[in-house]
Amino acid sequence: MEAGGGQSGSRRHGSLLLYSSLVLNALLLAHHFLSPPQLGAAGVDGGGLSWALQAAREAEAVAATDCSGHGRVFLDGIIGEDGRPGCECNRCFGGPDCSLRTPNCTADADCADPMFLEPYWMRHAAGSAVVVPGWHRLSYFATDGQFQSVELEKHIRRLHRAVGNAIVDGKHVVFGTGSMKLINALVYALSQDGSTAASPPAGVVATAPYYPAYRRQTMMFDGREYKWEGTTARWVNVSRNASSSTFIEFVASPNNPDSLLRKPVLGGASSKAIVDHTYYWPHFTHIPAPADEDVMLFSASKLSGHAGSRFGWALIRDETVAKRANYYLQESSLGESRDTQLRMLRIIKVILANLRGKEDIFAFGHQVMRTRWRRLNAVMSKSRRISLQKIPSHQYCNYFNRTREPSPGVSTSTPRSKMCIRDSYNALLKANIITHSGVGSEASRRHTRVSLVKSQDDFDVLLERLTHLVHTEKLGTLHAPSSTSSA
Amino acid sequence: MEAGGGQSGSRRHGSLLLYSSLVLNALLLAHHFLSPPQLGAAGVDGGGLSWALQAAREAEAVAATDCSGHGRVFLDGIIGEDGRPGCECNRCFGGPDCSLRTPNCTADADCADPMFLEPYWMRHAAGSAVVVPGWHRLSYFATDGQFQSVELEKHIRRLHRAVGNAIVDGKHVVFGTGSMKLINALVYALSQDGSTAASPPAGVVATAPYYPAYRRQTMMFDGREYKWEGTTARWVNVSRNASSSTFIEFVASPNNPDSLLRKPVLGGASSKAIVDHTYYWPHFTHIPAPADEDVMLFSASKLSGHAGSRFGWALIRDETVAKRANYYLQESSLGESRDTQLRMLRIIKVILANLRGKEDIFAFGHQVMRTRWRRLNAVMSKSRRISLQKIPSHQYCNYFNRTREPSPGVSTSTPRSKMCIRDSYNALLKANIITHSGVGSEASRRHTRVSLVKSQDDFDVLLERLTHLVHTEKLGTLHAPSSTSSA
Repeated sequence: MEAGGGQSGSRRHGSLLLYSSLVLNALLLAHHFLSPPQLGAAGVDGGGLSWALQAAREAEAVAATDCSGHGRVFLDGIIGEDGRPGCECNRCFGGPDCSLRTPNCTADADCADPMFLEPYWMRHAAGSAVVVPGWHRLSYFATDGQFQSVELEKHIRRLHRAVGNAIVDGKHVVFGTGSMKLINALVYALSQDGSTAASPPAGVVATAPYYPAYRRQTMMFDGREYKWEGTTARWVNVSRNASSSTFIEFVASPNNPDSLLRKPVLGGASSKAIVDHTYYWPHFTHIPAPADEDVMLFSASKLSGHAGSRFGWALIRDETVAKRANYYLQESSLGESRDTQLRMLRIIKVILANLRGKEDIFAFGHQVMRTRWRRLNAVMSKSRRISLQKIPSHQYCNYFNRTREPSPGVSTSTPRSKMCIRDSYNALLKANIITHSGVGSEASRRHTRVSLVKSQDDFDVLLERLTHLVHTEKLGTLHAPSSTSSA
Repeated sequence: MEAGGGQSGSRRHGSLLLYSSLVLNALLLAHHFLSPPQLGAAGVDGGGLSWALQAAREAEAVAATDCSGHGRVFLDGIIGEDGRPGCECNRCFGGPDCSLRTPNCTADADCADPMFLEPYWMRHAAGSAVVVPGWHRLSYFATDGQFQSVELEKHIRRLHRAVGNAIVDGKHVVFGTGSMKLINALVYALSQDGSTAASPPAGVVATAPYYPAYRRQTMMFDGREYKWEGTTARWVNVSRNASSSTFIEFVASPNNPDSLLRKPVLGGASSKAIVDHTYYWPHFTHIPAPADEDVMLFSASKLSGHAGSRFGWALIRDETVAKRANYYLQESSLGESRDTQLRMLRIIKVILANLRGKEDIFAFGHQVMRTRWRRLNAVMSKSRRISLQKIPSHQYCNYFNRTREPSPGVSTSTPRSKMCIRDSYNALLKANIITHSGVGSEASRRHTRVSLVKSQDDFDVLLERLTHLVHTEKLGTLHAPSSTSSA
């Protein structure tokens, strides 16, 4: 009985096991074949996609290429022999995976290319990516029958309100291909209409040192309604008294090249200012108060680092001026890329979602720029011949609600005495450092602009060269290092 | 025994079943828990994605919204009360899902908004989508240190070679924010350098009827080095003899507004032509030979329908002219959106991959446009008062390797006799049809331009209104339908 009972028990036990096992198989198979792909995929492997999958895969595969931390691969990079886009290396790095350091490479601190924010966007890859479907906004006209995304405009207003760097109420928002495109658009909008007036052309001016594009662009377009008239120094008295002359004054605040906050200097009813606030964000400057000038300029380049997207905007109080600017943008290009507008909407959404949190872009940016400014000062303070400009330290910032260390995006350097060297641009060039000559901004040759916003590699090479410069000064010679090859 | 043997057999059989079932359990569980998500996901549900997943999901969810075939939802559409972007309906359709037809809606055949290609891109969703990572091309500089994507330029050259509509060898390719941006860039590039010459300004001219933007943009920029001088008719003799005057002649071929192939009419060494070939693609015209003028214009808008991307390019033979155009693009906007360049690369890849296959974009486009032209002719031929222009039929096309029916993107209509009506724009407007008045292109009021490239809904409404017009003509009255409300 026991054995039989045992046998019978084991048989029952076996049957139970068999049934359980069969049921489990049935369940597993059912799960495998019947669960909806969307839901089944979501948790484990993130699928359930159809038409967007191919593009998403391609983007991730390309981004996964290893460039040794000194470069990156882009989807539209040059296709190599293996049929895939190759690494694009930071300056002074080379080789297929950017692992080779170019010996004695020349430092380039010329252009204010805002690559310092690239690590932020790599960290926020999921939130900042955008899928552009093939049929996205084919039309000339956006939602409102105009050329601008209504949602992007809303988000730009939200951003200014949240950061507190500009008053947007009572202002028109006008988009351009970078703030560059808006330079002439605003000169046009503020000039007399050529067909109605016989008045002399408006004089376009700026206080030296200024951003050279104001002069170059105004002279290139060379319109009959305005004329480049040089620095404000010549016109201060004229502008107060003359009623027949109109002046359009460019003011950058913080100023490019010296990062100091500035105000218009020309007075009188016939003077109009275009205040360029591209650097008026908390990573570059303290924000003493929201800006509220009649015509203000901002750009994605210095807000989020998206210089390549070519996106900027103007805040304009007067409706007639805004209409004339919009007419210019319509006639010159029927507005700006809707693809970029879609992307900038996503970028600004990420910025807004992280504002004042631990992933605040301005806190990130300020930390990077402050560290660079400290390190640059530490080296330059040892130079006997070239000095870095002074920037007031620890000023109160309304955005961070505390005093903050300086963190300029650009800065100027000058010789310590006229006796020593006269031209800091050339002195630095001899030391294998490219900067932006002061001559371009109608400052003297003594000034030169140093860009601090480039990639960390660029900044590290700059510091290396400056350290070498200080060292050679001590040895009493200002020669370049043995080799002058550059990447 | 038999029973015992049966029992023993059934027990063996049971054990076998149990073991098999357990092994299957193990295999299924192993498959469930151990298979790599990337591979496991690829076949069934398309997952294995990380950072690109969120954007891909959002794009697909938004695109899946039902707009009744009379609209579509965009990722940057205006957010409704439900927190999601709403349908953007075609003209004459409304309601939350675009299912409501607006009664007696006015037809709009004014703007050449190339929406007729939207269905093509919806059909090619997977190939044409692009993921733009948050860190994509932050820099001002693209691969070659310039502002243009090297790969996109290569693909544009490939496309012209494959289509056979332009000779690209020995030409420079210069990108602009749509061909619109290139109008003044090329006028600038072909004018004397203001700083070096005291010669009179170049005269910018075109043969009527011409695309009005040539005049409007030239007059708006109003540069000192050039001047709008009206139609070529006044200058034909002058241009042959005068050595001091320079002329810059705009020629569109096919011409906008009448879709006829054109050549420059001004002769002489001092005349330079900008030949606008935006419509010189096989969906709009036969291609008798590849174009080979010194300065040619093309645009994404009329190639692929991506008007909203604002992307165009010039093919320029002379290096100095190309350099001046590039200088203009650098100084005015530091090049054009890299986001759009990435997208256009993908779009052109899809076009190339399908060329001369059953999904050829030009075959698709030609089929749509030819059908519209036939239908339009069928209706208009019945009108006693307004006639459609004649376009030579069945011309040989080198691209399709056969004769093809006409399929113009734009066309003009005129009154059948001066006695009948004098102004076809207003005659059509009374019939609730908006067209593009000939006055803008310095043609007479008798001409008016009809756009055929808009959405199918737009075209259908246009035909409805024209049919009604022909009907009312028969009744001896040209009044509008009872209600004149428009969407």
